[in-house]
Amino acid sequence: MRYPSHLLKLIQAFRKLPGVGNKSAERFAFHLMNWDRGTLSEMAELIKRIPDEIHSCAECGCFTDKESCQFCHPERLTTGVLCVIASPRDAYAIEETREFKGIYQVLGGLLSPLDGIGPDLLAIPSLLRRIQTFNVREVVIALDSTLEGDTTALYIKRELDSLSVITSRLAFGLPMGSSLDYVDGGTLARAFAGRGKF
Amino acid sequence: MRYPSHLLKLIQAFRKLPGVGNKSAERFAFHLMNWDRGTLSEMAELIKRIPDEIHSCAECGCFTDKESCQFCHPERLTTGVLCVIASPRDAYAIEETREFKGIYQVLGGLLSPLDGIGPDLLAIPSLLRRIQTFNVREVVIALDSTLEGDTTALYIKRELDSLSVITSRLAFGLPMGSSLDYVDGGTLARAFAGRGKF
Repeated sequence: MRYPSHLLKLIQAFRKLPGVGNKSAERFAFHLMNWDRGTLSEMAELIKRIPDEIHSCAECGCFTDKESCQFCHPERLTTGVLCVIASPRDAYAIEETREFKGIYQVLGGLLSPLDGIGPDLLAIPSLLRRIQTFNVREVVIALDSTLEGDTTALYIKRELDSLSVITSRLAFGLPMGSSLDYVDGGTLARAFAGRGKF
Repeated sequence: MRYPSHLLKLIQAFRKLPGVGNKSAERFAFHLMNWDRGTLSEMAELIKRIPDEIHSCAECGCFTDKESCQFCHPERLTTGVLCVIASPRDAYAIEETREFKGIYQVLGGLLSPLDGIGPDLLAIPSLLRRIQTFNVREVVIALDSTLEGDTTALYIKRELDSLSVITSRLAFGLPMGSSLDYVDGGTLARAFAGRGKF
């Protein structure tokens, strides 16, 4: 007995979500069968209205639901510090730390030749333009500590070589609350090399 | 910086899905931000139209998108075998085994006094009625091998005591492809007690 076709389509739609395989998609779809019409309509409406409610800031690339992007607030534009992030989501994680008061630049991805993502797909021109416009003196590169993140960070560093800006990158080391027993060798090596006076 | 309110609502909606915590819900919501308007509308429509496209069979409780339930096909009604399942989803898993050609009865849950689920919330009357109507001679109880499943199976067995039906329950033992090293003690004990001539 096959699933009803509507159920099958729903499962296929859920499978498009990140990290969702067949089993999870089925669980989600069957779970929705128990929702009442009102809750289903509400969820449908939320999904459908995303493009009307949220857009990317034309300047920094962060998500916003306002006319003017909150991340591009005038107070932030004059700090002279710009943080390079891969996706809009990273901005919220960095905001939570309360360590940063400058502006953001969303790249829209990381360099990955194997996936066909070259520099032309990243917001490098916008980064260069805004560094000039807002007299940025420090560019903080807040990218993943992966091969793609390293490659992209290096590429950006070289692009900025001719400009008079300081480039910095997030520190590598032990995650907070971790035990040496459980930390991988690469992390430990970076933490060792980057040790500081105590 | 807080998430845009629409994004926040979307995250809350995704959190209602089974096994989805805050992190997954955020990942899903941010992922949808990259979908185009058409794909979003399609997904929204699929969710919204669930109640129009799929309904529970008034007889057996399985899901169907047809006028007449496929699980209540006339050929199945005359087999004299009925399988008791907790939820409509279980029927598809059992169909996949191709071991069963009878009819189903969805209970709609398992007995769980702590969660306030008593016998009155399960489709016991329908089960009893259909056993009579379709001259059922064997009732296969296909419920979870959990405390709730065991309790419910026992309850049903007692309800059927006065009727002249054979009650059976799915076998307990080693899952296929499992190594004894990794099987828990309870399973091993059940497998041992239920050993068969080889």
